[in-house]
Amino acid sequence: MPASDLKDVVYRANQKLAGTGLVLGTFGNVSAVDRQAGVFAIKPSGVPYEALTPDRMVVVSLETGQPVEGELRPSSDAPTHLELYRAFPTIGGIVHTHSEYATVFAQARQPVRCTGTTHADYFRGDVPVTRPMTQAEVDTEYEKNAGLVIVETFTSRGISAEEMTAVLVAHHGPFTWGADVFKAIEHAEVLEYVARVEWRVRALDPDAPRPDVFLVDKHHLRKHGPSAYYGQRKDPKK
Amino acid sequence: MPASDLKDVVYRANQKLAGTGLVLGTFGNVSAVDRQAGVFAIKPSGVPYEALTPDRMVVVSLETGQPVEGELRPSSDAPTHLELYRAFPTIGGIVHTHSEYATVFAQARQPVRCTGTTHADYFRGDVPVTRPMTQAEVDTEYEKNAGLVIVETFTSRGISAEEMTAVLVAHHGPFTWGADVFKAIEHAEVLEYVARVEWRVRALDPDAPRPDVFLVDKHHLRKHGPSAYYGQRKDPKK
Amino acid sequence: MPASDLKDVVYRANQKLAGTGLVLGTFGNVSAVDRQAGVFAIKPSGVPYEALTPDRMVVVSLETGQPVEGELRPSSDAPTHLELYRAFPTIGGIVHTHSEYATVFAQARQPVRCTGTTHADYFRGDVPVTRPMTQAEVDTEYEKNAGLVIVETFTSRGISAEEMTAVLVAHHGPFTWGADVFKAIEHAEVLEYVARVEWRVRALDPDAPRPDVFLVDKHHLRKHGPSAYYGQRKDPKK
Amino acid sequence: MPASDLKDVVYRANQKLAGTGLVLGTFGNVSAVDRQAGVFAIKPSGVPYEALTPDRMVVVSLETGQPVEGELRPSSDAPTHLELYRAFPTIGGIVHTHSEYATVFAQARQPVRCTGTTHADYFRGDVPVTRPMTQAEVDTEYEKNAGLVIVETFTSRGISAEEMTAVLVAHHGPFTWGADVFKAIEHAEVLEYVARVEWRVRALDPDAPRPDVFLVDKHHLRKHGPSAYYGQRKDPKK
Repeated sequence: MPASDLKDVVYRANQKLAGTGLVLGTFGNVSAVDRQAGVFAIKPSGVPYEALTPDRMVVVSLETGQPVEGELRPSSDAPTHLELYRAFPTIGGIVHTHSEYATVFAQARQPVRCTGTTHADYFRGDVPVTRPMTQAEVDTEYEKNAGLVIVETFTSRGISAEEMTAVLVAHHGPFTWGADVFKAIEHAEVLEYVARVEWRVRALDPDAPRPDVFLVDKHHLRKHGPSAYYGQRKDPKK
Repeated sequence: MPASDLKDVVYRANQKLAGTGLVLGTFGNVSAVDRQAGVFAIKPSGVPYEALTPDRMVVVSLETGQPVEGELRPSSDAPTHLELYRAFPTIGGIVHTHSEYATVFAQARQPVRCTGTTHADYFRGDVPVTRPMTQAEVDTEYEKNAGLVIVETFTSRGISAEEMTAVLVAHHGPFTWGADVFKAIEHAEVLEYVARVEWRVRALDPDAPRPDVFLVDKHHLRKHGPSAYYGQRKDPKK
Repeated sequence: MPASDLKDVVYRANQKLAGTGLVLGTFGNVSAVDRQAGVFAIKPSGVPYEALTPDRMVVVSLETGQPVEGELRPSSDAPTHLELYRAFPTIGGIVHTHSEYATVFAQARQPVRCTGTTHADYFRGDVPVTRPMTQAEVDTEYEKNAGLVIVETFTSRGISAEEMTAVLVAHHGPFTWGADVFKAIEHAEVLEYVARVEWRVRALDPDAPRPDVFLVDKHHLRKHGPSAYYGQRKDPKK
Repeated sequence: MPASDLKDVVYRANQKLAGTGLVLGTFGNVSAVDRQAGVFAIKPSGVPYEALTPDRMVVVSLETGQPVEGELRPSSDAPTHLELYRAFPTIGGIVHTHSEYATVFAQARQPVRCTGTTHADYFRGDVPVTRPMTQAEVDTEYEKNAGLVIVETFTSRGISAEEMTAVLVAHHGPFTWGADVFKAIEHAEVLEYVARVEWRVRALDPDAPRPDVFLVDKHHLRKHGPSAYYGQRKDPKK
C-alpha cells in the first residue's frame, strides 16, 4: 500500500482512539505496519489529537528504526512499537493508552485475571504484566527496552501474541495489538472493560472462585480459530 | 402479529438497548416472542448495533429452535432465550447484557442482595446466580444448557419468574425479562442500578443490616399485584 | 401566588431535577409549597419526566392532605412531603431522589460524615439517617410515617432543619429541602457530591482524622447566617 | 499586558475550567498574574460560570491584596492566591477546584503517592498535603493563612514549586499552578486523573510496590528541563 494510505489509516485510527475516552490529553498513540514496504506509521510526539492530519503521521523503517517520512518527531514510544512489530510477525497495528483501569493494574503490577466469559472471548487467560525494568534499561534506550521487556514476557512464559493481544507495562500502562489497527483499538476498549469489571470483582470478593478452564476455552474458541461459530459466516448464504 | 411487526419491535428494542449504555460493541441481545405464532425474533450474531435493520432480525421457531426467517445467523445466545420462553410462559421479551456491575456479581458468583427499597420495587428478594456449568454442559449445546441452568435455578429454589425478572449466569452476565421486551429492558437498567448501589453498600459496610421483610414486601406489592397503588389508575377519572 | 404559578414552578423544578442525573426512570419527585394558600404542588405518581406538563402537577392541601387540583394521583410520597412541610415551617421546597451514593449510605444505614469543607459549606455536621420503621408504621400509612420518622430524627436529636437540609431514610434514599425548591435541588446535588467523596474517603482510610469543629463552623458560617461573606452583597455597590 | 487582556485570559480560563467537569456549581476559581503590572485577575465570588463575562473578573494588587478593578467581590480564596503568587515567583496562573478524587485525598489527609509514570511525567514525587490549620489560623484571615500553610509545606520540606505544581489543602481540596493559567488547568486535570488511578491502586493492593526513583526521574526529565525529548522541537526542521 502507498505510504499515504498507511498514514491515512493511522490518522483515522488515532482519531478513533481519541473518541473512545481511553486517552487523556496527548497521552497514547496508535501505529500500523505495512510489512511489504517494511515501514510503520505512527502518531507524532506530543501533538494534540485535534491538531493531527494524515500528513503529520510519521513513517518509520522497520529495519533501521529511523523516520523515513514526515517532518515531525515520531511518538517517543516508537521504539517500543518497533520491537513489537519485529518480534510478533502476525500483528498489523499497535495501540498504547493510559486507560484508567488497565493503568491501575499496571501501576499495582498485577495481572488482569480472567474471571469471566467476556474476558475469555477476547483474551485467553490472564493479561500479563512485565517485570520492572532495570536502571540500565531505563537509562539507555528506555523506550526500545520497554519493547524488549514486553517480548521477553511473552517468550519466557510461552504466551502467544495471537491469543493474548494485550500486555501491561509495569508502573506504566497497557499496550494492545491485533491483526489490524482497528482490531488493536477494539482490544484496548475491551481490555479497559474487563479490567474495570475485574477490579470490582476483587473488591467484592478477593477469593471469588475462578471460572473453569473448559469454560474459558469454550468462549475463546467459539470466537477465534477454526471452530469459531460466533458472528456471521464470511460468505453468508441461505 | 405479523412476523414483520415482531421483527420491527425487536429491532427497536435492540436500538433502545444500545442507547442505554449497558452494552459494549456487539455484546448483548434482545428478543421478543409471539406465542400465538409460535416464534420469537432475535438480533443476528455479531452484527454492530448501527448496522441493524428490522429485516436483519432473525425469527426462530419455539418448537424446533430453528430459524424460520432471516438470512443471518441468530445470536449465539438464541438457544438460551428459547429455553426461557419455553419454561416461563408469561414472559414476552428477554434481554442479555454485559452491564458492568451486574457482570461483576455474576463473575464473583454472588447474588445481588436486596438491601433497599428500589431493589424491592422491582425484584422481590435477592437476584440469584446460577450454579457453574459442568464440562459436559459446556462442551455440548452450551447455550441451550445455559438456559436450562437458569430454569433449574428458579424451579429448584421455588423462585417465581414474575416476581424475580432477572438472573445472573455464573462467570458470564445477566439476563432479564418482562411481560414485554421494553419491560425487559427496563429491568436490565434497574438491575444495573441496584447492582451498582449494592456493590457500594458492601464496600462501605459488608455487615450492614438487611431491611425487614415487611418493608421489602410493602415496596414490591405497592407496585405489583392486586394491591398496587403506585402510578396512575388504568382509567384515570376525577 | 396563583396555583398555576405554583404548578409551573414545580413543573420546571421536576424538569431541572431530571437533568441532574440524580433520578432514574420515574423515581424521584419535587414539590413546592405556597404557605399563604395552604397548598403544595407535587409531581404525579409514576409519570415519566418527559410526559410532564405544568397542568399535570397535583396540588395538595396542607390541612387535609387531599388533592385539590389536578386529574392525576399525586406522587405516592406526597404524605411524606406533607409531614415535612407541617413540621419544618421555614422550608419552601422538597426533593426526593434515589441518587446513587446518598442511597448507598441510606441502604447501609450510615450517616454521611462531615469530613471536608465542601460538606461544611452546605450541611453543618453529619447528614443523619432515620431509624428503621416498625412493621406497624410500614403496614399502615407508610408514606406518612416516613415523614414522621424524619421529623422525629430531627426533633429527638435537636437538629435544625435550616442548618441540616438533608436526611437519609433508612434502606430507602435521601430527601433534601431548602428555602425554595431550587435550593432543595441544589442541596440534592451537593449531597450526592459529598456522599460520593465521603464514600471514597472511607475506602481510602476508614480511620482518617475528622476536621476540627472550628473549621466546619468557619465554612458553614462564612456562607450562611449573619456573618456570611461568601458571594456578592445583595446590593453590590462600589 | 493591559488589564483588559488579563481579565480576558482569566475569563477564558474559567470557562475552560467549567468545561473540564472538575467544578460543581460555583465552586472553584482560576486566576492569572501580570507581574510587570503587579496585579492578578480572579473570578468573582459565588457567581455561576455561565454568568461570567471578562468585565466581571476582579483585578487585585499583588502589593496591597486589594481589588483595583471590577465591581464585584473577588473569590473568597483570593488571599490564598495572593500568598502563592508572592512566594512562588515563577508561576503565572493558579487553579482551585473541588475535583472529586483529589478532594478525597485532601479530606483523608493523604498525599497522592507517585506510583506510575503518568504521575511522574507531571509531578516529581508524591503530591503533598498541608498540615491542618490551627484555630487561630482559621478564625482570623483564614484564606490568607491557607496560602501561608501551602507555602510552609513547600519551604519546610524543600519541595520545588516548579517540579511539584499541585498541593492538597487538608480537608479542603487541591490547588494547582503553572507557568501560565492554561498549564495550571492542565495540571488540575492530570492531578484528578492520577488521584483517581492511585485511589484504585490502593484499593487493589495497599502494599503494591513503588516504582524505582530512576524510573520516576526518567519520565519527569524526558518531559521537563534541559534534557527533555518528549514532544516537538521548538523550531522543527527537517
